[in-house]
Amino acid sequence: MFKHTTRVSWVDTDAAGIMHFSNYFRQFEACEEEFYRSFGLNFKTIFEKYGIGLPRVEAHCTYKSSCHYDDTIEITLEVGEIAEKTITYNFQAFVKDGDKLGAEGYLKCIAVNEKWKAVPIPESFVKLIRNKAA
Amino acid sequence: MFKHTTRVSWVDTDAAGIMHFSNYFRQFEACEEEFYRSFGLNFKTIFEKYGIGLPRVEAHCTYKSSCHYDDTIEITLEVGEIAEKTITYNFQAFVKDGDKLGAEGYLKCIAVNEKWKAVPIPESFVKLIRNKAA
Amino acid sequence: MFKHTTRVSWVDTDAAGIMHFSNYFRQFEACEEEFYRSFGLNFKTIFEKYGIGLPRVEAHCTYKSSCHYDDTIEITLEVGEIAEKTITYNFQAFVKDGDKLGAEGYLKCIAVNEKWKAVPIPESFVKLIRNKAA
Amino acid sequence: MFKHTTRVSWVDTDAAGIMHFSNYFRQFEACEEEFYRSFGLNFKTIFEKYGIGLPRVEAHCTYKSSCHYDDTIEITLEVGEIAEKTITYNFQAFVKDGDKLGAEGYLKCIAVNEKWKAVPIPESFVKLIRNKAA
Repeated sequence: MFKHTTRVSWVDTDAAGIMHFSNYFRQFEACEEEFYRSFGLNFKTIFEKYGIGLPRVEAHCTYKSSCHYDDTIEITLEVGEIAEKTITYNFQAFVKDGDKLGAEGYLKCIAVNEKWKAVPIPESFVKLIRNKAA
Repeated sequence: MFKHTTRVSWVDTDAAGIMHFSNYFRQFEACEEEFYRSFGLNFKTIFEKYGIGLPRVEAHCTYKSSCHYDDTIEITLEVGEIAEKTITYNFQAFVKDGDKLGAEGYLKCIAVNEKWKAVPIPESFVKLIRNKAA
Repeated sequence: MFKHTTRVSWVDTDAAGIMHFSNYFRQFEACEEEFYRSFGLNFKTIFEKYGIGLPRVEAHCTYKSSCHYDDTIEITLEVGEIAEKTITYNFQAFVKDGDKLGAEGYLKCIAVNEKWKAVPIPESFVKLIRNKAA
Repeated sequence: MFKHTTRVSWVDTDAAGIMHFSNYFRQFEACEEEFYRSFGLNFKTIFEKYGIGLPRVEAHCTYKSSCHYDDTIEITLEVGEIAEKTITYNFQAFVKDGDKLGAEGYLKCIAVNEKWKAVPIPESFVKLIRNKAA
């Protein structure tokens, strides 16, 4: 399990005083980016080394309790189902002291080549992320 | 069925040249807002007239084909499942000429009172949205 | 003068109940995009037809009065100073009934070629925008 | 001088492959928020302790060189002009190794009371931020 801690900025809030629901998707992806960075990769270098881009084919989030301006949010990433051409990352977002679950969801990515055609995920990449998120 | 047409602005795109996946959630909500506007309501006046706020408890999107800068997007809204305290709006986003499905998903909202406590949705509100989205 | 009317969406607001200041820059650029669209162009086709990209080198906004959720905003665009390699667009944003100035500012763009090198703006493009914004 | 380091996330980029210009304003404000956090305050507690909100009355940015996906950005904050009712924060954003200036600008804030009326900035608050940003 990989963990990334962030905060609710003023711009993330809405007129109800809570973080706008759409921002959780930005935070999930930010966590995924930090996961890659933790072993020296990013979307660009993944493409260079493994020949794949990872556009999202599905995004889901359920909201459990509101989070507010300046709350600390701890996001956890786990590798979920891996199929031939897709990877699903599961996320949970814990608010403040880490005891309260704010939201949980997933991002399902499909591997595509430079022509934006779906391709099998290289085994070495699967091993890498399984190992790093263990 | 309610329809709202929008476009992909430059700021909505990412370095892959497509609209960032998170922006579909903004567009779904924008369509919901335009739906309310079509009969003279918005989140604020819904609260004033019906005593309910409508925070989201679930958000989902599946991405079918990419959309690019300056593409026209036609979003359709349909009223999905209505439970005692929740409303689900289903959305489809058609790209360009309206023939290509770009994405589809839903937003599930829960009715809350001024203390942010879940409450039954007023029947008059249910009738209204069912009628207007027919 | 070109005019573009938009609204303050829920996601544009912040916990103070007003539109977040940064969103005016998105709206100014959206107005510029609608200006180009009004005569069949966009950033991509400008590059194809005139060989120039238009990255921003300066952005400025002064805020005169707050705007709130669901307010109608009328944005006006005027062509300001045009130098050899730069174009400045001036914007004013009028809230609600169009009488109250919400904000005003400008975006200064520099013409660059495909190597991202500053180049003179083609005279035909200058004539076009002067004519269309007159 | 206060420093805050951040990165360019995928969602911050646009179809030109660079960070969208409007995101610098989000990053400037994020830096201001981190500045307050460095001595235990945020916009909410500033209001509670000093009785003032700090809406922006002016925002400015000049762009010096592009920044790209995954670039590290070091933002510096300095307290600029302080008038009776306004504070100006000056920002510089250094890309990658810190040698290249990506952008610089400022945010001018006005102190308002709970009725959103401009008021003098409490001297204790001025002393505090001058001291902390020294």
